Amino acid sequence: MSLQDTKETRKLIMDTAGKIITCRAAIAWAANSLSIEKVQVEPPKAGEVRIKMTSSGICSSDDHILKGLFPANFPLIPGHEGAGIVESIGKGVRSVKPGDKVLTLPIPQCRECSSCLHPKGNFCEKQDVLPSSGLMLDGTSRFTCKGEKIYHSFGTSTFSEYTVVHEIAVAKIDDAAPMDKICVISCAVPTGYGAAVHSAKVTPGSTCVIFGLGGVGLAIVMGCKASGAARIIGVDINEKKFPWARALGVTDCLNPQNLKKPVQEVVMEMTGVGVDFAFEAIGLPETMTAAWDCCHLSYGVCVIIGMAPHNSQLSLDATKVTTGRTLKGVVLGGYKTRDCVPQLVTDYLQNKINIDPLITHQLPFEQLHKAFELYHAGKTIRCVLLF
Amino acid sequence: MSLQDTKETRKLIMDTAGKIITCRAAIAWAANSLSIEKVQVEPPKAGEVRIKMTSSGICSSDDHILKGLFPANFPLIPGHEGAGIVESIGKGVRSVKPGDKVLTLPIPQCRECSSCLHPKGNFCEKQDVLPSSGLMLDGTSRFTCKGEKIYHSFGTSTFSEYTVVHEIAVAKIDDAAPMDKICVISCAVPTGYGAAVHSAKVTPGSTCVIFGLGGVGLAIVMGCKASGAARIIGVDINEKKFPWARALGVTDCLNPQNLKKPVQEVVMEMTGVGVDFAFEAIGLPETMTAAWDCCHLSYGVCVIIGMAPHNSQLSLDATKVTTGRTLKGVVLGGYKTRDCVPQLVTDYLQNKINIDPLITHQLPFEQLHKAFELYHAGKTIRCVLLF
Repeated sequence: MSLQDTKETRKLIMDTAGKIITCRAAIAWAANSLSIEKVQVEPPKAGEVRIKMTSSGICSSDDHILKGLFPANFPLIPGHEGAGIVESIGKGVRSVKPGDKVLTLPIPQCRECSSCLHPKGNFCEKQDVLPSSGLMLDGTSRFTCKGEKIYHSFGTSTFSEYTVVHEIAVAKIDDAAPMDKICVISCAVPTGYGAAVHSAKVTPGSTCVIFGLGGVGLAIVMGCKASGAARIIGVDINEKKFPWARALGVTDCLNPQNLKKPVQEVVMEMTGVGVDFAFEAIGLPETMTAAWDCCHLSYGVCVIIGMAPHNSQLSLDATKVTTGRTLKGVVLGGYKTRDCVPQLVTDYLQNKINIDPLITHQLPFEQLHKAFELYHAGKTIRCVLLF
Repeated sequence: MSLQDTKETRKLIMDTAGKIITCRAAIAWAANSLSIEKVQVEPPKAGEVRIKMTSSGICSSDDHILKGLFPANFPLIPGHEGAGIVESIGKGVRSVKPGDKVLTLPIPQCRECSSCLHPKGNFCEKQDVLPSSGLMLDGTSRFTCKGEKIYHSFGTSTFSEYTVVHEIAVAKIDDAAPMDKICVISCAVPTGYGAAVHSAKVTPGSTCVIFGLGGVGLAIVMGCKASGAARIIGVDINEKKFPWARALGVTDCLNPQNLKKPVQEVVMEMTGVGVDFAFEAIGLPETMTAAWDCCHLSYGVCVIIGMAPHNSQLSLDATKVTTGRTLKGVVLGGYKTRDCVPQLVTDYLQNKINIDPLITHQLPFEQLHKAFELYHAGKTIRCVLLF
């Protein structure tokens, strides 16, 4: 049963303020070793917020962390695409108060660093994703389990009934937001939809190709469709995703494993001159190169969204770099997160964007392993865990 | 002595219309084999223009061609940064007439292809640079020497007293233009200055780094300075270029060979967070990677101008692509050439831009080998050959 925003739950929240909370959390003890445990969650320190989680999506970046593809300190509590209600706040926190509905932000917005102060920057210097120390800004953790320090993940650790997050990584959202769904606006929606509408600024009548039709990829499709793209080519090796993709606006589905030529050659033949916009939402250097190769030589824009494995190199034909194409890396859609993410929730409530098709499954938190099984089998777009 | 635009020369020009002209041209018989020869230049066919060259700059791309670093068919007549006077025109040519002062354009503007029709495209599909066939659009050549067919280069072949160029690769310029100088507005100026002011749109107060302080690199410096950049870091292994660079606005000069760390690490330390804009005007994959690594992770823009050798690969740290940086390839400053290059000439005549500092040497055409010696010794910015 998911937590509803009633007076009763708000009272429950207040009663725990200032105390260590013992609750359930998923702990990755090492790569490929995930279990639900009882953990102790410390109260928030100055500038921090303790959140009672209501829902959390399962994102491929979590899976990469769990597989050890990104550098991370174990044991850790994974999860970053979270929604919850503020349980208590540390000293100096002003932007949220206990009882507020919030989203956790894997990329914070400190409003003080070079990225935050720059009109086009959003990769806040206080992020803990690349690289991930697994610690709060003061160098300590708020989690312990069986007497052992447990590391945070992406500064959010949303696979826990309670988590502690910096205020700069918390977005207060509309009180009417349905908490069992809007967690996907914490990552997949801004990351994908934002990459298309905000960062790439897909143009009406354009041709787009999207590599990877997971939650982020399909959110990109939604953004391309909303921007008036005339042709949207979807690429995935899992054809189970094609019906979902078509329903959202993909006009052509390609499975590279069933093609006789490299997919970029097929896209080049299909379009004659290459696409206006290519999006990579997988996180593999080879698909990044393929996306780049699909772009029109002169004005194509290749947007890289997928996070590549540790120590990997992206290789591009250097002789064809100067012809005019643009390669643009984008995190969280290029949005300044605290400024922009709450608006996406409001846009959803006002039916300006529809996140519902992205959420194919909702499971109680204790069925975490089943949720990952569904993810690995390619049977979900987003499976949302409910606390 | 350079050709002046007098009635007499105009008359001379008219007298040769329709005839094969025998004149001097530089022929590269193979890689590293350049000599001045007597060549026959055919009259222009439909849509073509025969030009009596007045001046031509020596650009590093010509040198790359001569060294065999770019794929090309030999024997060929090199040169692309040219100014001259229209001698005669082929059937259907309307934008220029005999006697007009013109620049040759290594990137044409056909106004019909996907690049030309797109608001942001300028890499016209009718270009003959990447790859270079060395032939006119009808698959033939206009040059012969000792009975042998001689290939064109970049569709321009300006190291010849007369050349034949497609109308789409010819820009009519102001009649007051000084023909011994403005050839550099055919390539170096739009390529460099345009990359900064038109393509990257360098912002006031920004920090820039420029790899390569040759003619294009220093034109980039001029563009950064004109755009109000606060700090301009110049990188070159030839310190002879540093006084010129400083005179144009470079605030810090770095010679990577004299540094104890990779230059990108030094630039990162100098700036704290990385630069706003990095420009690569050398054409080496390693310096492209270094330029990328100098950029601010979130909002840095890396502009690639240098043409890389055949079959080379640009390698980027894939894990740091998603943080927000932009890699942008730019040819001829992103300008639609026939539309925009004439305005740069007018801007020069109106003292809005100053190309004079780029021209350090002027030599008669017959001293071509001396001009290349000066270029190889790093003693010139631009050496202009006068016909």
